[in-house]
Amino acid sequence: MGQLEELKAKLKSDFHIEFSDCSLLDTAFTHTSYANEHRLLNISHNERLEFLGDAVLQLIISDYLYRKYPNKPEGDLSKQRSMIVREESLAGFSKDCGFDAFIKLGKGEEKSGGRQRETILGDLFEAFLGALLLDKGVEAVKTFLYLVMIPKVEKGQYEQVKDYKTALQEELQVDGDIKIRYEVIGEEGPAHAKWFEVRVTANGKELSNGKGRSKKMAEQEAAKKALHQLGED
Amino acid sequence: MGQLEELKAKLKSDFHIEFSDCSLLDTAFTHTSYANEHRLLNISHNERLEFLGDAVLQLIISDYLYRKYPNKPEGDLSKQRSMIVREESLAGFSKDCGFDAFIKLGKGEEKSGGRQRETILGDLFEAFLGALLLDKGVEAVKTFLYLVMIPKVEKGQYEQVKDYKTALQEELQVDGDIKIRYEVIGEEGPAHAKWFEVRVTANGKELSNGKGRSKKMAEQEAAKKALHQLGED
Repeated sequence: MGQLEELKAKLKSDFHIEFSDCSLLDTAFTHTSYANEHRLLNISHNERLEFLGDAVLQLIISDYLYRKYPNKPEGDLSKQRSMIVREESLAGFSKDCGFDAFIKLGKGEEKSGGRQRETILGDLFEAFLGALLLDKGVEAVKTFLYLVMIPKVEKGQYEQVKDYKTALQEELQVDGDIKIRYEVIGEEGPAHAKWFEVRVTANGKELSNGKGRSKKMAEQEAAKKALHQLGED
Repeated sequence: MGQLEELKAKLKSDFHIEFSDCSLLDTAFTHTSYANEHRLLNISHNERLEFLGDAVLQLIISDYLYRKYPNKPEGDLSKQRSMIVREESLAGFSKDCGFDAFIKLGKGEEKSGGRQRETILGDLFEAFLGALLLDKGVEAVKTFLYLVMIPKVEKGQYEQVKDYKTALQEELQVDGDIKIRYEVIGEEGPAHAKWFEVRVTANGKELSNGKGRSKKMAEQEAAKKALHQLGED
């Protein structure tokens, strides 16, 4: 069974989705690096579908948040939306759906670990949504997102990500002017799968440290641990 | 006839739109300044609907551009979308639809010319789209936008706005390194209805000047006129 056939079977069994126009699906799973490597074949890549998918994703998440939080002001809804649709989160959904196994990459991209790269996986998720929109309409995209994405959002996984640093700031500021600093104290792993370690200090005194796939995530982790420790004192 | 009744009649006759839930329509046409002035009545204002309307607008324009330009790369589509959905353009559509007469403003905002302010009118247009989405669904918003907005987009009014300055730059750069400058040489009118006049020079030599509602628009006008004059030489 070819890769596209396998993907079609997977979409049918896991999400009850059957594409009418399978070339859309093929395009959604074709990274620019693959299209560039086969330039003479004039293969479409997924950037245009990603443009469309981003827009339909924004709408469905906006609609969800609007209804879910009837009293939240626009600014809060905006912030929460941007946390939900950010690259790392979309890359995670791509993996949850098993999409990472099916993306067609150029050889160089494949070698350097592109299949694990968050930008590629996040874009892939959006491109899939774009293809689904064109093939089945906005309601089908909504159904899919309410199946794979909203349950995790409901668990609150995407509410607090940005908040640990802010929360730590607020927690400590009570005691007067305090200078909180984050510094990278370690990096591990190859370029495509790096881990960062970050130390957080308050007025020069170490509070905690945290690890993460990006500096930002490591900072959040460090702030989270510092908050826990402060809570225990 | 009350203002809301008048608006309902207008929507019906001009756009064949009849709201089921008229409180949504009322909210869409209520500016924060009005709600703040009547704080005790706990009136909803249109900021949350604007959040939703912005998202549905982005989707419909994205979908339109994707289909209209099958060969344009994602970056071009993005740029064109941002020109179409920018504040000045949305404010213009609000006026075209006659929405400006119906927005409820606080007294201070009304006095200082809020009814003509582009931010207020642009947000109003988005809020109306949000209300329409909730009341009638995404297809109704699409129908409305294809009636009032797309025909103007088709005429190319929103393609070139950013291009005059770039075009002038490209035109002149052929002759070697040339320094093009834009400077405001005049402002007229009260704060809420200002006009700007801008002069464009190349290596210190005046090429042309232009007027506009904002500095940016005046710059575009000046660049446009300079291009015309160069073409005639």
